[in-house]
Amino acid sequence: MRSNEFSLIERFFADIGRGEFPVRLSQGDDAAVLDVPPGMQVVMSIDTLISGVHFPEQTSAADIAYKALAVNLSDLAAMAAKPAWFLLSLSLPDDDEDWLEEFSKSLGQMSQRHQIELVGGDTCRGPLSVTIQVTGLVPEGQYVTRAGAQAGDRVLVSGVLGNASLGLAHLQQRVHLPEPLRELCVTALNRPKPRLDLSDFIAQFASAAIDLSDGLVGDLAHILRSSRVGATINQFALPVNDWIRKNDAFDYALTGGDDYEICCTLPSKYQDHLDDWNQAHPECQLIEIGEIIKSDYTLMKGNHSTDLKHWQGYQHFG
Amino acid sequence: MRSNEFSLIERFFADIGRGEFPVRLSQGDDAAVLDVPPGMQVVMSIDTLISGVHFPEQTSAADIAYKALAVNLSDLAAMAAKPAWFLLSLSLPDDDEDWLEEFSKSLGQMSQRHQIELVGGDTCRGPLSVTIQVTGLVPEGQYVTRAGAQAGDRVLVSGVLGNASLGLAHLQQRVHLPEPLRELCVTALNRPKPRLDLSDFIAQFASAAIDLSDGLVGDLAHILRSSRVGATINQFALPVNDWIRKNDAFDYALTGGDDYEICCTLPSKYQDHLDDWNQAHPECQLIEIGEIIKSDYTLMKGNHSTDLKHWQGYQHFG
Repeated sequence: MRSNEFSLIERFFADIGRGEFPVRLSQGDDAAVLDVPPGMQVVMSIDTLISGVHFPEQTSAADIAYKALAVNLSDLAAMAAKPAWFLLSLSLPDDDEDWLEEFSKSLGQMSQRHQIELVGGDTCRGPLSVTIQVTGLVPEGQYVTRAGAQAGDRVLVSGVLGNASLGLAHLQQRVHLPEPLRELCVTALNRPKPRLDLSDFIAQFASAAIDLSDGLVGDLAHILRSSRVGATINQFALPVNDWIRKNDAFDYALTGGDDYEICCTLPSKYQDHLDDWNQAHPECQLIEIGEIIKSDYTLMKGNHSTDLKHWQGYQHFG
Repeated sequence: MRSNEFSLIERFFADIGRGEFPVRLSQGDDAAVLDVPPGMQVVMSIDTLISGVHFPEQTSAADIAYKALAVNLSDLAAMAAKPAWFLLSLSLPDDDEDWLEEFSKSLGQMSQRHQIELVGGDTCRGPLSVTIQVTGLVPEGQYVTRAGAQAGDRVLVSGVLGNASLGLAHLQQRVHLPEPLRELCVTALNRPKPRLDLSDFIAQFASAAIDLSDGLVGDLAHILRSSRVGATINQFALPVNDWIRKNDAFDYALTGGDDYEICCTLPSKYQDHLDDWNQAHPECQLIEIGEIIKSDYTLMKGNHSTDLKHWQGYQHFG
C-alpha cells in the first residue's frame, strides 16, 4: 500500500465488509496477511472499471462501487468459489468527500451482503477508475472452469439477457424505452447481481461455467474453445424482455454484454437436480437455451440457422 | 477476467514468469486457482501506476512494466514475504503493438528475475494506467509489520535515498544534473530495486519494516504510529549522493519518495548479524540512520534538531 493516502483510507475504507474467513493483518501495512484454511484452494481475479469506458460518466458513486465489486464477485461465482477478501485501487480526479462517502457506503453494503472483507488497497489522483481484486476460496478440486463441457450437455443461463446493454443504449439515446422497462434495464446495467447463490450448484453439477460480461455469443465461445466442443443456441429460448422479443432485437441478448449472468453447461443426467433448483429458486432460474454438440456453433431461429463462428462480442482493443 | 481481450492477453501475456509455487489454473478462465503450501500464509498487496501521476508521460513501456511490478514486490519485501503470483490490469489508450511488445518483454524479464508468475488479469482501453496485485507467501507467523519497533532499536535503510526524486526533478527541469549523476538518478526513478534479498534478514531480525515509497519522514512515521514509539534521524548519516550533500538538498532524501528502499528497525542485540549482512552484501548495505526512542520524532543535524511531527511526505489527495 502506498502509505500517504493513509488518512483517506482510514477515514472511508477502514471497515468495509466482514467475511467468514479470518484476516490476520488487514489494511494499514505494506500488505495484508491471510490464512487459507486447510483443504481450500485460492481463487483470484481482477477487474477494472473506467469512467466513460465501463460505465457512463454520469453513473453515481454508489452504482460504481456496487458494480466494481459485483463484476469481480461474478467471476468467483463462475468458478464456484466463495468470496473471502478483496483489495481496492481507486483513482479519483479530486478528493470529493461526498463522492467518497457515497462510494464507501455502497461498497460497504455490497461487501457485507456477500461476506467479503476489504483488506487493503491504494488510492491516488487520476482519471476516475476502480480496480478490485477479489480472492475466493473453494474446497480442493471443486472449482469449475471453462473446460469440461461435453456434447449432449445442456447450455443454461441464470437470468434475463440483454437488459444491461439495452439500458446502456437508452442512456446513450440510441433507443427510447418506456417506463418501467427503462428503470429495469438501467438497474440491470448499474446493479448486476453476482450469482454467488449458484456456487454450490455449479460446483456439484456444472461441467463448465463462465460469467457473461461481454455477451453470450462471445463468452460461450470461450467455453467451446476451452472444452473443444460446439453448441447450438435456440434464439426463441433466450430469456429476454418483451421489448426485445417484439422488436426482434435479440442482438442485445446475444452480444450486448454486461449481463453478469452465469452461463453453464450441465450433463443431461442432472436434469432432476436442475428442476429441483428451479423449483426452489424462483429468483434465480436456470434457463436452458441450447445444447453442446461436437463441433460447429450455430444460432437457431425456428428453421433458420446462423453460423456463429465468426461473430464477436465487444472486442477490447478491437 | 473480462474475456474478449482474450487474443491480446494470449498474444502478449500468456507466458510471463515462472515461480517456485505451482499454479493450478492460470490465465484464460474467469479466475486463477492457486495452491497455498501447508504452513504458509498469504501476503497480498495492490498498487496502481498512472501516467503523468506516478511516472512522467515520456516513460518507456519497458520502464513502466519494470516499475509497476517492482513497487509491488517492494511491498512483499517489506513484509518478508516471497513472491508467488501476480495479476495485471492494464488500461491503454490504443492497441499500440510495439508498446505492448516492449511492455510484456520487460514484465517477463522482471517476473522471471523474481520468480513470480502472471496468473491473470484484464486489459481495456482507457487512460494509460497499470495496476498490479501481488501475492507472496511467508512461513506461518514470520511476516514483519510496521508495528513492533521498540525504544533502543536501530533505524536502518537499505540503500541510497533521494536519487529517485532528484531524477524526477531533473526530468521536470527543476534541477540540472551533470552526467553520470543524471543517469544514475533517472535509473533510480524508473528502475527501483525491490529488496527481496532482504526478506530472510528482515524475517529473522527486524522488529518492524516498511518500504519507502513516499519519502523517509512520512514512511518512518507509519512505523512510529503503528509501534507507538518515536525516533531520531541523523541527517548526516543518511546515505545520499554527493550532489545532495554539497547542495544541502536533503529534502530529496527525507521526503522525496519513490526510493523503494526498505526502512527497518533492528534490536541492538542483533548488531553482529547486521555486520555480517553488510560484509556479505556489498550491493545491499543496511545503513544506520537513527534510533527508535520512546516518543518525539526529531531530525538531528549536528547540534540542531528539527521536530518532524508535522512534516508530511507527498500527500495523495492533498
